Amino acid sequence: MGRTPLPPGAVVTPAVVVDAAVLGANLRAMADSAARRGMALRPHAKTHKSADIAHRQLAAGAAGISVATLGEAEAFADAGIGDIFIAYPVWADADRAARLRELATRIRLSVGTDSAAAVARLAATGAPIRVLVEVDCGLARSGVAPFPVHSYEPGRLAPAAADEAAALAAAATSLEAAGLPCPVRSGGSTPSAARSAGPADGGPVTELRPGVYAFNDAQQVVLGAATLDQVALAVQATVVSVPAADRFILDAGAKVLGPDRPAWMPGHGLLPGYPEAVITGLWEHHAVVTPGSGPRPQAGDQITVIPNHVCTVVNLVDWLYVAEGGAVTGRWPVTARGRNV
Amino acid sequence: MGRTPLPPGAVVTPAVVVDAAVLGANLRAMADSAARRGMALRPHAKTHKSADIAHRQLAAGAAGISVATLGEAEAFADAGIGDIFIAYPVWADADRAARLRELATRIRLSVGTDSAAAVARLAATGAPIRVLVEVDCGLARSGVAPFPVHSYEPGRLAPAAADEAAALAAAATSLEAAGLPCPVRSGGSTPSAARSAGPADGGPVTELRPGVYAFNDAQQVVLGAATLDQVALAVQATVVSVPAADRFILDAGAKVLGPDRPAWMPGHGLLPGYPEAVITGLWEHHAVVTPGSGPRPQAGDQITVIPNHVCTVVNLVDWLYVAEGGAVTGRWPVTARGRNV
Repeated sequence: MGRTPLPPGAVVTPAVVVDAAVLGANLRAMADSAARRGMALRPHAKTHKSADIAHRQLAAGAAGISVATLGEAEAFADAGIGDIFIAYPVWADADRAARLRELATRIRLSVGTDSAAAVARLAATGAPIRVLVEVDCGLARSGVAPFPVHSYEPGRLAPAAADEAAALAAAATSLEAAGLPCPVRSGGSTPSAARSAGPADGGPVTELRPGVYAFNDAQQVVLGAATLDQVALAVQATVVSVPAADRFILDAGAKVLGPDRPAWMPGHGLLPGYPEAVITGLWEHHAVVTPGSGPRPQAGDQITVIPNHVCTVVNLVDWLYVAEGGAVTGRWPVTARGRNV
Repeated sequence: MGRTPLPPGAVVTPAVVVDAAVLGANLRAMADSAARRGMALRPHAKTHKSADIAHRQLAAGAAGISVATLGEAEAFADAGIGDIFIAYPVWADADRAARLRELATRIRLSVGTDSAAAVARLAATGAPIRVLVEVDCGLARSGVAPFPVHSYEPGRLAPAAADEAAALAAAATSLEAAGLPCPVRSGGSTPSAARSAGPADGGPVTELRPGVYAFNDAQQVVLGAATLDQVALAVQATVVSVPAADRFILDAGAKVLGPDRPAWMPGHGLLPGYPEAVITGLWEHHAVVTPGSGPRPQAGDQITVIPNHVCTVVNLVDWLYVAEGGAVTGRWPVTARGRNV
């Protein structure tokens, strides 16, 4: 299927545009895939930060959402989402203790943790909060033992899913041996989600928390976790300068495309209309594009860029423009943009 | 002088905090330095995006401000700033032509350009806009010949300022030979601004446009353009996890510290209270810190991080908290946050 192209001038650039048809197909496909394997789906909403999209995920069958911060949880609760997991080792200082107590009165709230000290603080709030133990992903970040973030490398998709299954099964066995029930075994980033082993396959993973799958991005395409036609979100940009034959300049810089460029990515984004072109340089408000031997646009042309990592793109803008059938039909607010606290 | 430390709990973390005394000293020092050399000062406001700070810059003697986008110019004009240069090759499509016309009725407006086609579009708006020709900085971005952005490398400060003087003098000679007056010769990024050659020294640079100097950041410290005591902006963070002896985890990730890490920077920010510690990993909401042989904080401790590149930090938040004498006394809105269009 794929995104329907927009005519020139459909939006004022730079603009972040979501193709509603591709988004809908992505939401249905992941929901169906999780259901077939007997797993609950709790999408990570830090990717889209949008209440409109969270409600679409629930309508497609999600059991609730995941978020990264208490502030994101509050924003989504205010927008009517009733079951939220804060997938982060929240430290309940005085401010957060009061806010957790308030939030737990109005939604079903779960929180991540990786230390007895943090659990004691959560318990001291007196709030009815469900706690999930964070299992280290092998990345030496926070958490207590291996999980699938290291699927973000080429060739790591299948081994990461196997590592996840082994780590969650081992952690659950340990907890149950200590008399602690472990009914929720949650994992599954977008690259590894299709390979996570759920109950229908005799696997330990009861819940998936992918985020990026709603939109996909250039990283997922290069990792082989999505095709270009499955990318729902793109940045529309204008060529503002063609200063030399070996380059042209777009008005989409790091402040809209986001900064992420792992060493295994070919540039700072993909240009589907200019498949030989590479974004070789990225400044705050300029992308420098090397056209290669392919066609070159003229100053004033609007072109489409697929960003490398969509989570950081959405956090930079206040609105997602919605495209349906090649026309911009509305816009959705980025409900939880910047809610770091 | 330096920032006055904040007591634990002064802000809910992660928070971006500006020390008002250090900010004031930075604004006065640059204004005095420009005036001594006979140069106008037109600070780049993309660094702070704050009307409160822009008004302080004008009060300290700035002639006007620079911005990166038309949307930033509109936001600052709405906040009462009357003389603005958009330091970017604006392409006047239909939307922007109308907005440029409107904006030029209420402020003194200047725009950058690097092509005859873009100038023709600006002229067709009919608006009384002053045009400055962008001279290429030697970075092969936009622009027409060398300017001081390449001062952002260790050891490049003096040569970058010399390159800038030569390039601006040559460009002005060319324009004047063609019968075009060139009264404004504008340059001077923060690292090179102290070395730009102005009229009082027989140099060609009539105007300085530094941005970062208002706050400074870890990059300026490593480049030798500022001391730690001249850094006005810091991120307050909380230790949320100490999962192992070789690391601790902060709640300040790339969504508040910003993503920038040039290869010549030692990590993803500096920790003045833990001078042997290095931020070795940065995720969206986690900083992974290696303490080295120095002290290690406990979970729940609040610590101070100096971000690598302050311009991208400010663009991620809605508020700058204001500290005076070791207490948080207020907050300023990030007036032009996200105004990319």
